[in-house]
Amino acid sequence: MITVAEHRARILDAVPSLPSERRSLADALGCVLAEDIRSRWPIPLFDNSGMDGYAVRRGDAAAGAALRVIADVAAGSADDPALGRREAARIMTGAAMPTDADAIVPLEDTDLGVAIRETAPAQITILRQPDTGAHIRRQGEDAPAGALAVPSGTTLGAWQLSAIASAGYDEVLVHRPPRVAVISTGSELVAPSTTPLRGQIPESNSVLLAAAVRASGASVTSVSTVADDPALLRRALDEIDADVIVLSGGASVGAFDVVKAVLGGERGVKFDNVAIQPGKPQGFGMCESGMLAFCLPGNPVSVAASFEMFVRPALRTMAGAGIIDRHHVKRIAAAAWRCPPGRVQVLPVIFDDETVQPATSGGSGSHLVTSLAAASALAIVPADVEHVNVGDEVTVMLL
Amino acid sequence: MITVAEHRARILDAVPSLPSERRSLADALGCVLAEDIRSRWPIPLFDNSGMDGYAVRRGDAAAGAALRVIADVAAGSADDPALGRREAARIMTGAAMPTDADAIVPLEDTDLGVAIRETAPAQITILRQPDTGAHIRRQGEDAPAGALAVPSGTTLGAWQLSAIASAGYDEVLVHRPPRVAVISTGSELVAPSTTPLRGQIPESNSVLLAAAVRASGASVTSVSTVADDPALLRRALDEIDADVIVLSGGASVGAFDVVKAVLGGERGVKFDNVAIQPGKPQGFGMCESGMLAFCLPGNPVSVAASFEMFVRPALRTMAGAGIIDRHHVKRIAAAAWRCPPGRVQVLPVIFDDETVQPATSGGSGSHLVTSLAAASALAIVPADVEHVNVGDEVTVMLL
Repeated sequence: MITVAEHRARILDAVPSLPSERRSLADALGCVLAEDIRSRWPIPLFDNSGMDGYAVRRGDAAAGAALRVIADVAAGSADDPALGRREAARIMTGAAMPTDADAIVPLEDTDLGVAIRETAPAQITILRQPDTGAHIRRQGEDAPAGALAVPSGTTLGAWQLSAIASAGYDEVLVHRPPRVAVISTGSELVAPSTTPLRGQIPESNSVLLAAAVRASGASVTSVSTVADDPALLRRALDEIDADVIVLSGGASVGAFDVVKAVLGGERGVKFDNVAIQPGKPQGFGMCESGMLAFCLPGNPVSVAASFEMFVRPALRTMAGAGIIDRHHVKRIAAAAWRCPPGRVQVLPVIFDDETVQPATSGGSGSHLVTSLAAASALAIVPADVEHVNVGDEVTVMLL
Repeated sequence: MITVAEHRARILDAVPSLPSERRSLADALGCVLAEDIRSRWPIPLFDNSGMDGYAVRRGDAAAGAALRVIADVAAGSADDPALGRREAARIMTGAAMPTDADAIVPLEDTDLGVAIRETAPAQITILRQPDTGAHIRRQGEDAPAGALAVPSGTTLGAWQLSAIASAGYDEVLVHRPPRVAVISTGSELVAPSTTPLRGQIPESNSVLLAAAVRASGASVTSVSTVADDPALLRRALDEIDADVIVLSGGASVGAFDVVKAVLGGERGVKFDNVAIQPGKPQGFGMCESGMLAFCLPGNPVSVAASFEMFVRPALRTMAGAGIIDRHHVKRIAAAAWRCPPGRVQVLPVIFDDETVQPATSGGSGSHLVTSLAAASALAIVPADVEHVNVGDEVTVMLL
């Protein structure tokens, strides 16, 4: 038996981050940046107005002063109207500041003049004198040209993508997200919509794994179910084109453990008992084809736990992510439960701001698929804890 | 000026949850279930073995007893071998229990017999007597037939999809996720990869909105940028086929505020000043076409804040979600900052397990696009707070 840390280290040591590729911003959501993005320009690009209003010479714009409106500066306009004494230019938020002006008077600090639509008023009266520089956004005050806008290694959400566009790019270099094939093994598995005969059960692990892979940001290249027949599994494996294969079932010591029978023959793939519950029998390694294989046990809760503990961190590493783990928090146990001696327990749980408890009261068996439906997190209980008591502090991995 | 709560209530009152549709499980990740899923069968479906090992009559299986192995029960097999005195059946995890057996002896509690691969051993010796019922998973012990497996209203993650498959379904009724069109308005906007002239800036709001819409689980039907020209905007709007249009820019009181000029003519669309910073000028309502329109201000941080405060809750409501808001936590301010009097402040922040601080030290201006790149959350400061001091407790909306 090896520890969870040993198995995890073995996996992460073997897992490369994938080569980078150029993607449009529209296609890069959730990807990890593989280059530093530096702004092509100062941000803002030029002095501009922070308000809709009037660009004025501050000295002319005392409360009560009447100014002649001699120009209109719209957003996008390259105009730079000259302002004489007691002259103002109407200006829109974001429009370039006239060189002669040194303050903005917001619309609401004027009498609005004669007409505020279509045609600019000929004259406005100032209600409140602006400070010098009021409502002017200065060129480069947000960032100078060449400033680091988004560092390499950042996972790209909406906000980061927006910053990259502002920095002057419509494409980025990102790590290619891993391409993953999912295989469920087991002669007992039938399609969920059929009526199972004695000994048969609806196939659900591929549904879980495909969705979990997608939710991790990786793509699913194929999903298949294979009976406990080495020739069929060999053929299914030969047809796969992916970076990673995630198999469920057949990784134990049973006589019909087809995954172990087939992949156990690969030099690079090793099967171990890992000190974890559920999910003890685990296989991992690189096939001769160059694809990484994860061989997980066949029970749904084992699959869910193994995916979160071992597969997802590997997929995030391949995707280039700096933070590969889910967020962990501490919660107080609101119920007591038993833990397997000498094994890390990974238990589907529900939690609130303060407490945590098992998702089902029925037990902690690896076959309790309904506990998954109700759960929103996994409690991670260290191997040396044999009993969680009410009031104990528990580590919870949020999903 | 209306309050944030008033604007939000007006939006949520007007927003329907969308009709439901049937989807395959592979296509339902992130959708909200529109029906109760009840298990078609008891789970487990039949008494089965929880371990690889031997199905025995417990009374025959004292430590040291030698049992004749008379059958092999593989996973998926419908066999029900009769067991006589001192007979055992080799059985795989998940395989149906022989009716005559009342316990499982795991492989590791036997001498493994003669051969453990391919051919079953003719005889095994028991090392440890099992308890009655040991390692038998009983039919229905997880859930009886008809039990509620996943309730209507659940957002479907990998675990819930797996439970639905186990319950016997390969399709589900889900709320249709909203289809959203994104329009950036502004004559100053140019494609990010071009070199802007005086007065021009790279268009980034549509990048932000499209990604934020997708990340919310909705789909993006079109993304466009339109100059400040009512005829062009009218034409762009006429071409849209979506449930929701999210516009940025042109919602204020400026002379060229094209969104207000065009959509202000729609009876159902209302423009308000909302007591929020950034994001004060907001438009919302139903167009005559039946599409809902959100008219957001044009600054990137305003767009980000408005999306999280107003648009995303509406999209989640349309998608049928019960929980429409992001998770909020409390953190202690590690820096001081000023807040606008009388307006809720929505500030891009960074945070750790204990503290929170603004994502940039440069200020809280709505144009600080770089603050978005660094931020991973929004601080939400109530309208009556004018200054956050170091040590103050702050509400943080996690993304």
